[in-house]
Amino acid sequence: MAQNIYDDPDFFAGYSRLPRQVHGLDGAPEWPAIRALLPPLAGKRVADLGCGFGWAARWMSSAGAARVLGLDLSRNMIARAEADTADPAIAYQIADLDTLTLDDGAFDLVYSALTFHYIADFGRLARMIHAALAPGGDLVFTIEHPIFMAAAKPDWITTTGGKTWPVDHYADEGERRTDWFTNGVVKYHRTLGTTINTLIDAGFALRRVVEFAPTPDEVARQPALAEERERPMMLLLAAQKAAAL
Amino acid sequence: MAQNIYDDPDFFAGYSRLPRQVHGLDGAPEWPAIRALLPPLAGKRVADLGCGFGWAARWMSSAGAARVLGLDLSRNMIARAEADTADPAIAYQIADLDTLTLDDGAFDLVYSALTFHYIADFGRLARMIHAALAPGGDLVFTIEHPIFMAAAKPDWITTTGGKTWPVDHYADEGERRTDWFTNGVVKYHRTLGTTINTLIDAGFALRRVVEFAPTPDEVARQPALAEERERPMMLLLAAQKAAAL
Repeated sequence: MAQNIYDDPDFFAGYSRLPRQVHGLDGAPEWPAIRALLPPLAGKRVADLGCGFGWAARWMSSAGAARVLGLDLSRNMIARAEADTADPAIAYQIADLDTLTLDDGAFDLVYSALTFHYIADFGRLARMIHAALAPGGDLVFTIEHPIFMAAAKPDWITTTGGKTWPVDHYADEGERRTDWFTNGVVKYHRTLGTTINTLIDAGFALRRVVEFAPTPDEVARQPALAEERERPMMLLLAAQKAAAL
Repeated sequence: MAQNIYDDPDFFAGYSRLPRQVHGLDGAPEWPAIRALLPPLAGKRVADLGCGFGWAARWMSSAGAARVLGLDLSRNMIARAEADTADPAIAYQIADLDTLTLDDGAFDLVYSALTFHYIADFGRLARMIHAALAPGGDLVFTIEHPIFMAAAKPDWITTTGGKTWPVDHYADEGERRTDWFTNGVVKYHRTLGTTINTLIDAGFALRRVVEFAPTPDEVARQPALAEERERPMMLLLAAQKAAAL
């Protein structure tokens, strides 16, 4: 079973105060870039893996999805999502993505935001998602970028030329421990190549790879985003299961 | 027209002494990883874009290719390739990849090693290659990895925790000037996302993404390769044109 930091009281208290949790999707600078990757939602059956407070589930329902199943490991998250949602098209369940199995062909879109880097066995998950999608179905997800995660000490370095981001141990895939609201948060570093090849091996066709960076206009409006142009923190991927012949 | 550093005498003299130019493919640590991406060569019509001294062209002919066309911007390279090759299945030509057009459907494999990062307009080149491939044809190429190229000062930084590689300006695509055997060598930085999306937009299906790193066994045999596990220097890509229906 995956580490469940989200039910750690210190973690949950800090996490709940993040702009993207207080303000929802509009508090996530990468949301417009994610939205550009989503297929038309009208009538679609959607699974949201790692749904958190349900912000995306509610948006997808409002955008026309027929039904949305939000899954999360955290009781806290699911309790809050249920409290914040009054929509018969949305259901939430506690689930561990390390062992989850969805019904074959039951979904038209599988979506996940900033969750899969907590999963040790991405191959199992990718194959399960491929089976759970109907022919022509879409997978759209975001993870922490491997450039952001790889280094032994992933934090800015100040040099005479300005600040720069360290990359080392890039080829050494596996566990990374970091402190984020609580100590020893466990994540799994995979190279970008491994993530993409795992999707291809699971049967997906790759549609889009976005190493999120705000546009110069977005930086002008929100100067704190400037550092996101120096190195990518998030990787956005869109892949598709082949349509029936 | 692309900058032609390879006909600069200082550059050519230094470059010619690189292990991979003296020893050929066996002097290139990434060669086994490239070979794993190549399709069966028997009977194939191959174009090698940036063929240099012709090492790969000769290998492909010996591996069964029906004919190999080696193209390079450098007169020095083509002269040396012709002097070193006695094989009626291989032809060489001077060509500028910024403006080159190949005949539609004329090739089964387009191959290129460490050349496309010198090309300003990768979209044009990718569309031209797609047109030049027969249905089901393959594109296999290597470039300098954007992690290696992005930073203002792309060189190791020593920290208390060991050496690390800087990444900054990653989202700022375009020209990078570096000194390599001669001053002011011009390369073009593109994010990994841009390179892959350009291939997809040109009509290719992505087959494989390899961020080359030597295996621990290879490092044991050649300890100087250890740093290639810290950050990827080379990106290897395989893509395919759809087969005819």
